Amino acid sequence: MYNIGIDLGGTNIAMAIVDENGTMIRKDSTPTYRERDYKEIIKDMGALANKLIQAEGLTEEDIHSVGIGSPGTPDTENGLIVYANNLKFKNTPVREEFQKYLNKPVYIENDANAAALGEYESGAGEEYSNLVAITLGTGLGAGIVIDGKIITGSYHGGAELGHTVIQANGEPCSCGRKGCWEAYSSATALIRDAKKAAKANPESLLNKLVDNQLEKINAKIVFDAADNQDKTAQLLVTQYIEYLAIGLVNVINIFQPEVIVLGGGVSAQGDNLIVPLKEKMLDEIYGGKDQFKTQLKVAELGNDAGIIGAAMLYKVYE
Amino acid sequence: MYNIGIDLGGTNIAMAIVDENGTMIRKDSTPTYRERDYKEIIKDMGALANKLIQAEGLTEEDIHSVGIGSPGTPDTENGLIVYANNLKFKNTPVREEFQKYLNKPVYIENDANAAALGEYESGAGEEYSNLVAITLGTGLGAGIVIDGKIITGSYHGGAELGHTVIQANGEPCSCGRKGCWEAYSSATALIRDAKKAAKANPESLLNKLVDNQLEKINAKIVFDAADNQDKTAQLLVTQYIEYLAIGLVNVINIFQPEVIVLGGGVSAQGDNLIVPLKEKMLDEIYGGKDQFKTQLKVAELGNDAGIIGAAMLYKVYE
Repeated sequence: MYNIGIDLGGTNIAMAIVDENGTMIRKDSTPTYRERDYKEIIKDMGALANKLIQAEGLTEEDIHSVGIGSPGTPDTENGLIVYANNLKFKNTPVREEFQKYLNKPVYIENDANAAALGEYESGAGEEYSNLVAITLGTGLGAGIVIDGKIITGSYHGGAELGHTVIQANGEPCSCGRKGCWEAYSSATALIRDAKKAAKANPESLLNKLVDNQLEKINAKIVFDAADNQDKTAQLLVTQYIEYLAIGLVNVINIFQPEVIVLGGGVSAQGDNLIVPLKEKMLDEIYGGKDQFKTQLKVAELGNDAGIIGAAMLYKVYE
Repeated sequence: MYNIGIDLGGTNIAMAIVDENGTMIRKDSTPTYRERDYKEIIKDMGALANKLIQAEGLTEEDIHSVGIGSPGTPDTENGLIVYANNLKFKNTPVREEFQKYLNKPVYIENDANAAALGEYESGAGEEYSNLVAITLGTGLGAGIVIDGKIITGSYHGGAELGHTVIQANGEPCSCGRKGCWEAYSSATALIRDAKKAAKANPESLLNKLVDNQLEKINAKIVFDAADNQDKTAQLLVTQYIEYLAIGLVNVINIFQPEVIVLGGGVSAQGDNLIVPLKEKMLDEIYGGKDQFKTQLKVAELGNDAGIIGAAMLYKVYE
């Protein structure tokens, strides 16, 4: 039995046939051209799905279900995308439209939740019965899976851990609040602070690494400069890790998951990030260091997490 | 069919026979004398349970199960209390010991979770499929119920919403962290700030209402002084509500529950609290006021929530 997983992005639609163990056996993609009407976009999705099935030498009968991870707010029950900022979707009947091309059960989820499910089913969370996945990228995304169920709130707008305030009246956040975790621990936040610090400290290696073009600063460059003993960058990394630790200890105090999986660009730092982060978190664990039972791991599936998780949605919703 | 609910407190053991609808039909209590060995305490619990059954004209066969809400950390699976600060319990086999006196299924939960379940089953949350209950008292307690399941973390130490940092490097908290929600929104936090403010503002009504004995200040006195147009108290209430709103919007962004139920001493303020609180929260809701779908209610069961919730534990664990 196979399932099809679809990661519907603003730029590309990535899709794969996935086996029951969560392994992708054939993958392909097609441009979204997101300005188009939903019917055209979904027509391309349907065509690609059928192409994959054929290319793999399968028939429609070999496919058990289709899962779609989408940005924005899905209505999982009715198979709609209620709203997606990046796409012109509003209460769009994605399930119904897709079934015109492939008449299988279609499950829809938010893309961050789908990615969390991917890591849970066949990535860094495979051995655990629950997980919180945190993506440190442009924003701070989160997905929560407990005993195989996705925790997403009554109206599919929950699990927005990035938009919990950790510094009242602090840095403005894109959501309108002040002091959200995202405004301190996303890659964007680190870059924002690094640009300020580079400007204020012309001698910092940060400036040299980007040929004084501050708009080229990214998270990796900050970590690289810190590795090279640049004091300004070291301070930035220390502060970044402090706030990240505060948010992650919050996550533990709320969910006490067996594992927290860190994904996104910043997580590519691996032990460079995890080791000092864990040390900082240990100081804040309720009941002392012995009570730190949650594992801290780096995501394993990269961009494929969303595809694999989407393909596994049938496990959640059937 | 009836169930017995037990609220095991540091001072009293409160107990009731509860019908299937969550209505208490006979209630009694006995002192805990918490310094005693667990066997003596549980012997008294067993005796009281049998006394209640007899007094109601029932037999053991009419009782389906027994639920116990306890402070501290329970091991729900094995029926132990792992640790309870107020009692001399450590890995105490409460289920096994209690069954010597009444041989029925025994379910054990943390008392805050049991109280949340009580409100969910037959209190302010009765009409909803999920809820977060927040108790504003000495501490800031929380219980989370989603689709009839208690969310408590893999190691029964989660749901500690009071110990999520909302003000990094802020007020010290009893848990060892700085800036926890509890350190701003518990009754204790309000009293701490009121004492400081009363001292700094000798003309404030706060001083008069307690005959200049600042140790007599409680949450009600602060709200009373504010109602009487005392500027110092009004500022305290405004600040208190601001931080409470920040934490509650965090709860919505994480769980997006259908209802948040506020209990504990401060919640006795009713609309005096709820109306300005909701107004403040509206400003911070992601996607604007239309997206404020979570109801905000005052707890209905008072101290009985823990007993009723304990009696309903069989619904969660069977």
